[in-house]
Amino acid sequence: MERQDKGLAWMLQYENIAWYEDGKVRILDRRIYPIETVFAECTTHQEVAKAITDMVTQSAGPYVACAMGMALAAHECRGKSEAEQMKYLEDAAYTISHARPTTTKRMQKIVGGCVDAARKALAEGPCGAGEDYVAEAIRDYTVEVNNLRYYRIGQAGKYLAEKFPSKGAIMTQCFAETIVGQMLKEARLQGKDIRLFCPETRPYFQGSRLTATVAYDMGFDVTVITDNMPAAVMKNEGIDLFTCAADVICVDGHVVNKVGTYQIAIAAKYHGIPVYVSGGPDQAHPTIDTVHVEMREPSFVLQAMGTRTANPNVKGYYPAFDITPPELITGIATDQGILLPTELHKYVADADDFLV
Amino acid sequence: MERQDKGLAWMLQYENIAWYEDGKVRILDRRIYPIETVFAECTTHQEVAKAITDMVTQSAGPYVACAMGMALAAHECRGKSEAEQMKYLEDAAYTISHARPTTTKRMQKIVGGCVDAARKALAEGPCGAGEDYVAEAIRDYTVEVNNLRYYRIGQAGKYLAEKFPSKGAIMTQCFAETIVGQMLKEARLQGKDIRLFCPETRPYFQGSRLTATVAYDMGFDVTVITDNMPAAVMKNEGIDLFTCAADVICVDGHVVNKVGTYQIAIAAKYHGIPVYVSGGPDQAHPTIDTVHVEMREPSFVLQAMGTRTANPNVKGYYPAFDITPPELITGIATDQGILLPTELHKYVADADDFLV
Repeated sequence: MERQDKGLAWMLQYENIAWYEDGKVRILDRRIYPIETVFAECTTHQEVAKAITDMVTQSAGPYVACAMGMALAAHECRGKSEAEQMKYLEDAAYTISHARPTTTKRMQKIVGGCVDAARKALAEGPCGAGEDYVAEAIRDYTVEVNNLRYYRIGQAGKYLAEKFPSKGAIMTQCFAETIVGQMLKEARLQGKDIRLFCPETRPYFQGSRLTATVAYDMGFDVTVITDNMPAAVMKNEGIDLFTCAADVICVDGHVVNKVGTYQIAIAAKYHGIPVYVSGGPDQAHPTIDTVHVEMREPSFVLQAMGTRTANPNVKGYYPAFDITPPELITGIATDQGILLPTELHKYVADADDFLV
Repeated sequence: MERQDKGLAWMLQYENIAWYEDGKVRILDRRIYPIETVFAECTTHQEVAKAITDMVTQSAGPYVACAMGMALAAHECRGKSEAEQMKYLEDAAYTISHARPTTTKRMQKIVGGCVDAARKALAEGPCGAGEDYVAEAIRDYTVEVNNLRYYRIGQAGKYLAEKFPSKGAIMTQCFAETIVGQMLKEARLQGKDIRLFCPETRPYFQGSRLTATVAYDMGFDVTVITDNMPAAVMKNEGIDLFTCAADVICVDGHVVNKVGTYQIAIAAKYHGIPVYVSGGPDQAHPTIDTVHVEMREPSFVLQAMGTRTANPNVKGYYPAFDITPPELITGIATDQGILLPTELHKYVADADDFLV
């Protein structure tokens, strides 16, 4: 286990995900990590929003980056009147939370928390923190809520790992590093001997680049497959469980996650393999009807790692996410335990319910 | 329709697929076509076998290349005694037909036909064709059987196109250019207004590079998607029919085709979309039990278009094909009409039954 947590621990430090300091936000560019470690540097909150739109940061990264963007916005309007600062921050909150349509409601909660943190800081006034005290208060708030978020995700990971066989094979799909890391840490604590199969997740290869790297860094046996292989692997290799996280879990049990999830869940049902999704129900989405699935630039699917793959005249098609209905889902691993997709109304929501 | 048949007609000329002449076989390198048009040049029949193993030629290409390899073998042993030539050709037939395990039995029929053509040419003797007359007889035989093959595939394509709606959307999977070309030609003759969705087919991208190009060249509206999108496209875009060809169709109705076919067929069943496979039942495989699914170099799935996609420490997994059971297949489009996968024993096999 010498490689345990090595890469993951680094990737989970906030200053490596996204960090505000001295009038700049730097964001780890996950479009190329871990092949290269490069940071995007944003000097305006609009640039942070654009970096989120452009998928510089992915998985759980946008939820840290959007808050750091709010810290940068506070820096931009420092020295103005309190009312002007609050107006500026509310405008920035709108801009940043709309960077990606499918997760706007979740981001609104985070940037809303940042606005509240700013209001509190302005009311209390600077106490030795210098002129950038509002930005720093927002950054402190971000670290605090994300620590709570990690705790809650750890709880969900524990319940999820309890569903693993003592020895077997798990299939994943484009997993945020926080939850895959917490899930595997719990699996190890519970003595589970698990192999992982990770579909590569075209067109960005997050599965092969990120999920597989995290799982390897945690000391597990990891096999990357292409996205046309999950059903064949279920048939040939005996997969015990399929699990993923989600961009949105609606209270009615529909799961919105990286495109491909739906198809793997269908294949899992066909093979009688249980499907567990980790996360908490999003109270902002009582049903799937309020979710807007983002369509991204179609031509992006016509290249791989920057090399064109198709005839110049054909069209592309790029839904970022797909929707898995509750009938395909065995259970939702929340911080409050495993719930059936049809009983998510039992989840006890609080003001911080977006943190899992 | 000005682009009708443009690229396809070129790609279907035997001299562009694989061609024997003057002691050499040249083979179109489909690993990079149509991005670049490069021919591999083989000066021994063993090099032809290796080119087939290395997937220089794909889809229907290996069935032309293996015969051209036999012509080259005849050239290599020219001038030896008749018995020595026949022995040499039978050894070459073994080598070439074992280039890829899953299609060995089908190749054995083709190279067996070449051996028969050589025997006939040797019995008749040279008639003005010079010392290379056996090789040239094998090449002539190859063109003749492939013309019959194109005719039969055309018949299958006609029956298949009759299943298309008059206006709608079809999904394909890594389709050999002969059958996709014939199917689309028939669809046009029948006045069908069809859009195509082509999964890219990792790791070689045959879907985005070849199937999509053929369909575009035939004048159709073509959209390339990544391999994790078929189920989402079925749900969002209203696919009317899924169709593919096959590397092996067993008489018991199991279909062996490019990995991913099984998963798309499962998704089609889930959405109530009919699945049609074109080809003829392979009498050498009465059941699936005799089929050996080729496992290729695992690390090949860890790159895309030559660029590494995954952590250097993770493993890959690469089954070239998967197996779709008869319960997922609506019908098999043969040259004798559409058959249920459970009634393939009704297909009237003849000595040339491998030609569809």
